[in-house]
Order: sequence, then structure tokens, then C-alpha cells
Amino acid sequence: MTSMILTTFDWVPDVPRGYVRDLRIRWALEEAGLPYRVESVSFRDRNAEHFSHQPFGQVPWLADGSLSIFESGAILLHLAERSEALMPADPQGRSEVTQWLFAGLNSVEAASLPWSLFQFSADTAETPGRQHIEAFLQARLQRMEAVLAERQWLVSTFSVADILMADVLRLVDRFDGLADYPVCRDYVARATARPAFVKAHGDQMAHFSAAD
Amino acid sequence: MTSMILTTFDWVPDVPRGYVRDLRIRWALEEAGLPYRVESVSFRDRNAEHFSHQPFGQVPWLADGSLSIFESGAILLHLAERSEALMPADPQGRSEVTQWLFAGLNSVEAASLPWSLFQFSADTAETPGRQHIEAFLQARLQRMEAVLAERQWLVSTFSVADILMADVLRLVDRFDGLADYPVCRDYVARATARPAFVKAHGDQMAHFSAAD
Repeated sequence: MTSMILTTFDWVPDVPRGYVRDLRIRWALEEAGLPYRVESVSFRDRNAEHFSHQPFGQVPWLADGSLSIFESGAILLHLAERSEALMPADPQGRSEVTQWLFAGLNSVEAASLPWSLFQFSADTAETPGRQHIEAFLQARLQRMEAVLAERQWLVSTFSVADILMADVLRLVDRFDGLADYPVCRDYVARATARPAFVKAHGDQMAHFSAAD
Repeated sequence: MTSMILTTFDWVPDVPRGYVRDLRIRWALEEAGLPYRVESVSFRDRNAEHFSHQPFGQVPWLADGSLSIFESGAILLHLAERSEALMPADPQGRSEVTQWLFAGLNSVEAASLPWSLFQFSADTAETPGRQHIEAFLQARLQRMEAVLAERQWLVSTFSVADILMADVLRLVDRFDGLADYPVCRDYVARATARPAFVKAHGDQMAHFSAAD
């Protein structure tokens, strides 16, 4: 089996360390035991070659044979097709994993990402737009609290949908946004206790600190 | 071929009409010529049956045989597997459509959705968090302007990635956010001139006004 190549930045500032999205891919690769190696591109100088693989100048992207894939959601879905450790093989299971993967991104992270931009900025102004964003996140967390109260993982077994959802909720937790959502907090703790997460997280931290 | 069932709200206020996400699904179904019918759930009273299909109490969801799928991205990908009018059949083409579908959602709409919440609120306060969101959208639009300058559609042929991306950019255009991005504006015009969009949009408008 040819080794896949995961590309991330060579270095990032302290604040995003442990949260750069190559983590999601490392985590999935570790869960599945798929062989891979990590390559770097410059954080400070993003050249045309970088934009040819990731048109927004972001990371990560994954090379798998002749395919080069960007967007963490698309990469996770690609890897899930390669391993039942990441997605059941039956049509019902695949469909459920796919919809929850999109839900983690487009129903939950769509709310948590703008919310986190205000947290990063230490911006506390209570303007109408800001209140919309706060209400948007609370509505999503309330529903996730109800959904997760009934199950250990989003579908019948651990999957890429959990990698995505746990990583999204982890950033909310970082800013203490799960204080009123103990079920979501327990879910994040359960997911991040997995050896594959611990390995992936340690590897990302080591990768960025090697360039300090 | 059994007819699929697309579920949306019975009614919505004037402001979101023409932009409710069932439009994306109608559009894809029309492009592919797949048989479907539309059913409604109450906008004002969202019951347990609704939450069992769409755990956030949103719309749309699609029933296809024994599968019930929520999240517009997941539904579009499901439909794309059923028709080459929505995605090429070869691995390279499928991979490119998938990554651009995620990019429309998670690189562009992730920026445009919070931006639009401020537009809907007529919130003009220039706080640090707001400035982050504005810069986030501008960075994404600048890149889309460069990407679209080189091509008619995101991959070699029109696909669900274009349905998604054009619908996302259409909402930015509604608030005049594409004034400095003529290539993006032309792309939206090109996509929404397609007969399948015109049919889908007209059908959504008629559906909601029938309940006034």
C-alpha cells in the first residue's frame, strides 16, 4: 500500500496549535492504521504551488496516489471509503456517517466558528449581529446535547463523523462554551481519550514545536 | 424508479423566500431529471417527528427508498451518486466535485453565513470580531475570483459543486457583497440562468406563497 502524504504548515503561532485541521486527518489515519507521512509548506510564504493544491492557501491537503484532496471534510470522507474503522460499509451506515459529517461542519461548526472569532478577539460588544451568532450556537448545542444523550457515538460505531464533531466541539470547550452542556463535554472527553487522538494531537504539537 | 420525497417548511417569512435550502435540492433534482415530490412540515410548530428526520429542526431532508437524509451537502452528494448530470463517474472527477462541494460549504459559506447574519440585522458596529468576519469573507471571495477567472464551472462540467457554490454566492450578491467581484457575479448569473435553477426557484416561491 503506497503511503499517503498529508501536507500541513511548517509552523503556526501558539494559539492554533493543537487545533490546526491536519489534526482531523492525522486522527482518522491513526484510527484506520493507514500508512502516511507528513510534509510541510511555509506558513509565512504561501506560493503558487501551495494554492494549486489548496485554492484558499489553507491546510491540510492529502495526496493519495494521483489524487490531491483539500477540505478536511472531503479528506475524511475519502479516507472513510478506505476503512471500516472510519465508516460502516452498508448503504444505511454510509449515509448516516455522511450526513453527520456534514452536520458537524455545516450545522455546528457553521455556528461555532464565527462564535470563536469573537472569543479569539476578546470582543464582548453585544451588537444585534453578535447576538444572532450567540443564539445560533446555543440552538445547535442544545440539540447536540439531546442527540448525544441517547448515544455513545453519532452512528452505531465510532466514525469520521465523530472525529469531525468532537474536534468542532473541542474548540467550543476551549473557550468554556460547553459549561452548560455536560453531555457534549463528556462526548469530547470520550473521543479525545482514544489512543488515535492522543497520538495525532501529540504529533501535531511536536511538528509545530520542531520549527520554533 | 420510485419517486423521492423532499420535505421543506409549509411556509416561511418573506425574507428567506427564494433562499431556503430545499432550493439546492430542487435544483439538483431538476438538473438530473429525477422524479420527486415535495412534502411540508410546519414552520411554526416543529414536532418530534420533524426532529427525528432533521435533528436541528431545520429543512430540508430527502427520503429515497429506506434512506432519510438531512444536510443539503449530504443530500447533494447522494443525488450526485445517482446521476452523471451532477457529478462525473470517474474517481478524479468525483474527488474534485466532492472537495469543491465541501469548499463551497466550509470555506465560502462558513464566511458568508455569519457575514449575512450581520447584514440581516442591519448591524454596522465595527467591533474586532465583526472585522474578523468581514476579512474572512473578503479573503475567500478574492480567492474565488481568481479560481473562477480560469474556468466556467468548478470542475470540468457543471456539477453539484456549482449548485452549492452558486447558491452560497447568490446570498452574498443579495446584499451587494459581490460588487468588487465581477467574476463571481458573472458565475452566479451563469448558474442561475440554467432552466433547472429557474424551475426550482419558481417552484419554491410558489410553494411558500400557496400558504400565505
